[in-house]
Amino acid sequence: MTKVHLKSDERIDQLFSQNIQIIQSASVFAFSLDAVLLAHFAKAPKGGRGHTVDLCAGNGAIGLFYSQKSIGNITEVELQPRLADMATRSIMLNNLETRINVLNIDLADTLSYIKSGTVETVLCNPPYFLSSETSQKNPNEHLAIARHEITTNLDTVCQVSSRLLKDNGKLFMVHRPDRLVDVLLAMQAVRVAPKRIQFVHPKVGKEANIVLIEAIKNGKSGGVRVLDPLTVYDIDGHYTPMIKQVLYGE
Amino acid sequence: MTKVHLKSDERIDQLFSQNIQIIQSASVFAFSLDAVLLAHFAKAPKGGRGHTVDLCAGNGAIGLFYSQKSIGNITEVELQPRLADMATRSIMLNNLETRINVLNIDLADTLSYIKSGTVETVLCNPPYFLSSETSQKNPNEHLAIARHEITTNLDTVCQVSSRLLKDNGKLFMVHRPDRLVDVLLAMQAVRVAPKRIQFVHPKVGKEANIVLIEAIKNGKSGGVRVLDPLTVYDIDGHYTPMIKQVLYGE
Repeated sequence: MTKVHLKSDERIDQLFSQNIQIIQSASVFAFSLDAVLLAHFAKAPKGGRGHTVDLCAGNGAIGLFYSQKSIGNITEVELQPRLADMATRSIMLNNLETRINVLNIDLADTLSYIKSGTVETVLCNPPYFLSSETSQKNPNEHLAIARHEITTNLDTVCQVSSRLLKDNGKLFMVHRPDRLVDVLLAMQAVRVAPKRIQFVHPKVGKEANIVLIEAIKNGKSGGVRVLDPLTVYDIDGHYTPMIKQVLYGE
Repeated sequence: MTKVHLKSDERIDQLFSQNIQIIQSASVFAFSLDAVLLAHFAKAPKGGRGHTVDLCAGNGAIGLFYSQKSIGNITEVELQPRLADMATRSIMLNNLETRINVLNIDLADTLSYIKSGTVETVLCNPPYFLSSETSQKNPNEHLAIARHEITTNLDTVCQVSSRLLKDNGKLFMVHRPDRLVDVLLAMQAVRVAPKRIQFVHPKVGKEANIVLIEAIKNGKSGGVRVLDPLTVYDIDGHYTPMIKQVLYGE
């Protein structure tokens, strides 16, 4: 395995269901279950080819996980230099430099680097919270930017996704159910039609706290499928079999 | 109990979880689980007062069920004379003439009968299918009108609901998940903000086939809650405990 330099606050985590190692840091960014679930939910196009773009890539976890089910190139777009650097080193750590590159740019500028209408798949785990929700904002700037719509927002993410995607190309997004209507409207407004939705509930009997959405560029608005939900924990607080399968491949 | 005349193809069904009897007819209209679930999902306003309107009322089942959890007046709006007549007789059968009335009109004309901005609660089990989906259209005209957007459509239903409702009044609608985005967009377009959503799955592991939506007049777009889902049948094909409770009060 390639040796890469780790900064003092960094560790290497392995997702056991896949042979992928990721540089993490509690003080700047660590991927969450949301990222794992999005990479699991996203389907590679037939044959696995085509260019994939991961917007709001953070430390690159989603693109790295997704690389195991596709064979095309992947571009990770991340604004924060520290996170983009972590992603770059994780790509090296997994010897995936020939397939995955990192663009350390504002995602609004992505079209200056990638031609419009050429992308097969867009993956996105955007900031969930409105910038106006200041009371909950994290005092750590790295985490605040990742979680709040400070440097980008849902409309921009959807607009850029739509412009990047080919006809019938797919956008896979993870978000919070409390913004479900905002998300579906933002997609529909840029002709990216939601087609497959899965809700994730922390426990049986609890409201959903994660939503996974697959949408198709220039698709019609009908024909939405709402999958059987995922439940994260059983009544004893342990991961359910379906989540163990996603995390550990058991 | 009041005696009412039954036509030859009619029967009286009782929903055992409530002390309500409904005149049904397999050849023109019989309420389905969707209607029972909507009446169960709909919450009465505090104190149970206020005017409720049931649009696309059919044989009046939803308004009749809902009457057991509210104390205000209820208006059933139904276009088809035969179904409006069944609703009228069911209201008599349950001695609810002082609280429930039937308007045998096109719902588009409701505002000629009920003042705009005066309604606390709108209930609606609209036709689910686009009129263009002709291949699946029922040859029975009564059933076709109830199921397909022949005489009304989603936009009209939402526009009329919005105009009827007071500020912060609530619309409760049951629909098919495959039109989820259409429904949410149609509501949002008339400033009726979806706030609480529950999906209903026929069995564990199956995609949802019913969606229940609560929306609020002039509400903001965020803060959507996606409840724990309902599952109708267990693996042996029997009703689950949650559905038995709704149907039989067990």
